[in-house]
Amino acid sequence: MTEKQWVLTDVAGGIWLDDFDLDPQDGPSLAGATNWSVQKRTLQGGVSAGVDVVEVDNGRLTMSILPTRGMGLWKGACDGLALGWNSPVPQPVNPAFVNQSDRSGLGWLSGFNELLCRCGLSSNGAPGTDVIKNNEGNATETELTLHGKIANTPAHHVAVSICDTDAGTISVTGVVDETMMFGPSLQLVSTFSTTAGSNSFSIIDEVRNLQGTPAELELLYHTNFGKPLLEEGAKLVAPILEMAPRDTHAAADIDSYDVYLGPTAGYAEQCYFFELAADEAGQTRVLLRNRAGDCGLSMRYAKSQLPWLTQWKCTQLEADGYVTGIEPGTDFPNLKTFEREQGRVVVLPPGGSYQVRIDFEIHGTAEAVATTEHEIRALQEHFVPQVHRTALPKYSGS
Amino acid sequence: MTEKQWVLTDVAGGIWLDDFDLDPQDGPSLAGATNWSVQKRTLQGGVSAGVDVVEVDNGRLTMSILPTRGMGLWKGACDGLALGWNSPVPQPVNPAFVNQSDRSGLGWLSGFNELLCRCGLSSNGAPGTDVIKNNEGNATETELTLHGKIANTPAHHVAVSICDTDAGTISVTGVVDETMMFGPSLQLVSTFSTTAGSNSFSIIDEVRNLQGTPAELELLYHTNFGKPLLEEGAKLVAPILEMAPRDTHAAADIDSYDVYLGPTAGYAEQCYFFELAADEAGQTRVLLRNRAGDCGLSMRYAKSQLPWLTQWKCTQLEADGYVTGIEPGTDFPNLKTFEREQGRVVVLPPGGSYQVRIDFEIHGTAEAVATTEHEIRALQEHFVPQVHRTALPKYSGS
Amino acid sequence: MTEKQWVLTDVAGGIWLDDFDLDPQDGPSLAGATNWSVQKRTLQGGVSAGVDVVEVDNGRLTMSILPTRGMGLWKGACDGLALGWNSPVPQPVNPAFVNQSDRSGLGWLSGFNELLCRCGLSSNGAPGTDVIKNNEGNATETELTLHGKIANTPAHHVAVSICDTDAGTISVTGVVDETMMFGPSLQLVSTFSTTAGSNSFSIIDEVRNLQGTPAELELLYHTNFGKPLLEEGAKLVAPILEMAPRDTHAAADIDSYDVYLGPTAGYAEQCYFFELAADEAGQTRVLLRNRAGDCGLSMRYAKSQLPWLTQWKCTQLEADGYVTGIEPGTDFPNLKTFEREQGRVVVLPPGGSYQVRIDFEIHGTAEAVATTEHEIRALQEHFVPQVHRTALPKYSGS
Repeated sequence: MTEKQWVLTDVAGGIWLDDFDLDPQDGPSLAGATNWSVQKRTLQGGVSAGVDVVEVDNGRLTMSILPTRGMGLWKGACDGLALGWNSPVPQPVNPAFVNQSDRSGLGWLSGFNELLCRCGLSSNGAPGTDVIKNNEGNATETELTLHGKIANTPAHHVAVSICDTDAGTISVTGVVDETMMFGPSLQLVSTFSTTAGSNSFSIIDEVRNLQGTPAELELLYHTNFGKPLLEEGAKLVAPILEMAPRDTHAAADIDSYDVYLGPTAGYAEQCYFFELAADEAGQTRVLLRNRAGDCGLSMRYAKSQLPWLTQWKCTQLEADGYVTGIEPGTDFPNLKTFEREQGRVVVLPPGGSYQVRIDFEIHGTAEAVATTEHEIRALQEHFVPQVHRTALPKYSGS
Repeated sequence: MTEKQWVLTDVAGGIWLDDFDLDPQDGPSLAGATNWSVQKRTLQGGVSAGVDVVEVDNGRLTMSILPTRGMGLWKGACDGLALGWNSPVPQPVNPAFVNQSDRSGLGWLSGFNELLCRCGLSSNGAPGTDVIKNNEGNATETELTLHGKIANTPAHHVAVSICDTDAGTISVTGVVDETMMFGPSLQLVSTFSTTAGSNSFSIIDEVRNLQGTPAELELLYHTNFGKPLLEEGAKLVAPILEMAPRDTHAAADIDSYDVYLGPTAGYAEQCYFFELAADEAGQTRVLLRNRAGDCGLSMRYAKSQLPWLTQWKCTQLEADGYVTGIEPGTDFPNLKTFEREQGRVVVLPPGGSYQVRIDFEIHGTAEAVATTEHEIRALQEHFVPQVHRTALPKYSGS
Repeated sequence: MTEKQWVLTDVAGGIWLDDFDLDPQDGPSLAGATNWSVQKRTLQGGVSAGVDVVEVDNGRLTMSILPTRGMGLWKGACDGLALGWNSPVPQPVNPAFVNQSDRSGLGWLSGFNELLCRCGLSSNGAPGTDVIKNNEGNATETELTLHGKIANTPAHHVAVSICDTDAGTISVTGVVDETMMFGPSLQLVSTFSTTAGSNSFSIIDEVRNLQGTPAELELLYHTNFGKPLLEEGAKLVAPILEMAPRDTHAAADIDSYDVYLGPTAGYAEQCYFFELAADEAGQTRVLLRNRAGDCGLSMRYAKSQLPWLTQWKCTQLEADGYVTGIEPGTDFPNLKTFEREQGRVVVLPPGGSYQVRIDFEIHGTAEAVATTEHEIRALQEHFVPQVHRTALPKYSGS
């Protein structure tokens, strides 16, 4: 294996590249591919001031990675299909301008516009009161803010790797510390990886518990799509073991949970909670496809790593953010206190780590979509899906 | 019309000028004027790190504009008369260093030092509890912070225009988004404009509702003056239709509401709420003049745009910020819940916009001041001003 | 006296040096010393983006000063002995990324990793509710956050001085404003000073009350040590007049208050509050030494300036931050309301100032440590130390 690496950022080592531009003319071989590139720039102006963007182009698929926002994926495209959505917040936001406590703990929403952002690491989900240990070792109430801190924490180490083996791989790795004295001390090592000329990419994450005591982990991949993939009649295809609406509002439309509306005035979000079936190797897969069924995006991952899936339907008007979230996670995005009661909070031992890999594939033809749908349906063929028509106490509380 | 434009900042377009320096030697004609300039620099160090300052000099009047602080006006001068005031916070503050939730919602005051800053857009006035819709569409309590977010939101687009028509005009336009997912989505397009060699400038603002549902707007122009314009015996000249003190503390000095004290130890702010008279075209005007009446500054604007005026007397010691605010607004700076009850909150339809224009003129001679005073008195001559000696329930609550 | 000065940062004057590197080759004489330097760089990436570090090397002792974090001392070394500790937050944090309100007012801990950081200026100690005057002059409740703002406030003026007198002195001075409209208006002028080739340095601080009314001041020097100085059997040597444990948890180990454990799983912090004895000139001194007694660090200062000392024992596992704080202050780090009741809050008149000088010496031999211990014991020889076995109401409340 021939691998070359470039460190773009390393705070501890005093490394920082103002700009970075790598392409075949720069020398490294990527298995003979001739039209790929990796570029880095820092945004200037507005609330985007100081936000780093690493743009990967594998020749067919592009992706904009945001080290400054916890290694989230801002937006991408594959074979001309735009991936992402149009948030009311159009540009990436430097966490320095985000007050997560704002608006009763909903301040996170002032920086939310990514195709993929992580919710976690110490907590995710709804804002509310939890009980933590303070510096004196005593229990004290604290306010958790929506979706935790990781998406608003900049990476302190960023590196690009080019591997010449097989078809050639481009990787971008970032290290993000969610640490504080007397608080959670978790480290995310995140790698985005894609093969030259492919219609797929992978997220390979490791979360490490750096502290000397066990640490709780909640990790959810808030993966978001708007037009053109999302449209009236677009569908979610998932191998259901068990599913329930989050609340009565979602229950009202349980029969059409898997079909999307077009942009709809007055629409309020509806969420559905899933446990998916997996194959013998433990892999599960979920697909979002357009109405015609000639384009789609699938995510494949180990159910053991991400045992729960949340579908967030938010088909409000385009001006307000027409979007759906397909959100595999270690938990559902309820207040952490409830998830803890239900046994859906991971506990990492001192020095322990948690691995997640998600393989994303973009399907650009009716045949590719059909094949994927077929595969997902096959995952379910030995099970009778339990679709609950009302909220489940174990998923949503009472 | 010959207009030339330079874009200094455009986040979406990836445009950013580290420095900008435009003057007659650079080429564009400004109707033959020979001693004007527009310069931009970015402050470095302290809490000012990263604050952009655009300095306009029309040959007679200078103004420092702060794109990073919502297009506020930091300070200016005309014919040697300094405009602005000396806050305990001496330099412009990057919003990244302002926690508006701090000090029970008064954190805004840690960045407050402008000649003119906007209070708004979604709310302004006193901090306190309001009820909003959260992401699930449910009513939830939220804490509003003093004077809202716009003065602590950086512009994502900044442009300078030079127009050669007539006497020649210099304009600086900034676009500031106060947007979030599931929250207010308002956009300010603000233009500062001045004519070559003149003693006047204009603020021409448009606020657009970008969301797909109606949006509330509160917009107040917190325009602030210290020495030398403000001094013992300085006067506010306003065409009163109706006026009342905010509270008993202001009521105690109702007879001298229009006359200012010098710097006074132990002085606590006094506010007076006004509805002004307007001329047949709907224009009203207000003047702050010094004791001798040989210098002053007037603001002229449409009453329909800014129907209410707040006078903020804050003649405390100079070390603490000796200042008065002349504050035309769509509302009084009370807690938004009260202003809503009183019908003083603007509601913009989806895609709707709100226009404001304020023309500022600096009067440097006794004759100019007298002429302005005369004009203001004329606005009132067909009305008997209703001056209430105690707070009005409709203005201040009970 | 020959003194040369270089201004690195001055916001008001528009001065900013991207880099600064001064050494004997650059010209200024430092009493003939040949291996000293002063360097400044700005960190980039992660939450350290924009943090200035001034590194002083006197030829024997090095120190990294953080103007961006209120002129704190990040870490240093003397004769190869590392000074500082390993926090879970490894690199200096830009205050723009610190939300002090976070985690029930404990957000300060997300930026805490210094050898020396100041707690203050308007308040320090535990978070909680205080009553302040708001802009209307009325009493209002406010939430104080842990340890106040000064460590998260960047200096707006930074200068380096080289003085050729005697052995030659290197000084770094920073000016930090903790000011807001209608709020505290305190200014710290802090000077770090060291003599060429010496094993010592001094902190010489002045806090000025800039406002026109009396101002409260709480100032505590949170001076922190980990390995190698701190280890199992390391000792605090202090000339006790009176001492008490903070609470029952500290009382449980009162007999070994002065001896440290090694890294201990499950250890929760223990604090002890001291009044120290002083010599005839009013100077007191405290020493932290290792087990073998062949290295140590002492702090000498005027008891009149810093009448109270807090010992913070935090010998938890190294991963969690194995550390002790030796914290001379104007107060104990309790909630300000309690300290005010006990008369331990300084009140500065308008224009008044408060001086503090602490002389630090690093002792690298058994003989030097023994001499220092002897001196400290001598301070106490005319007193019977009052060591309380339980918390004192006047120190800890009830």
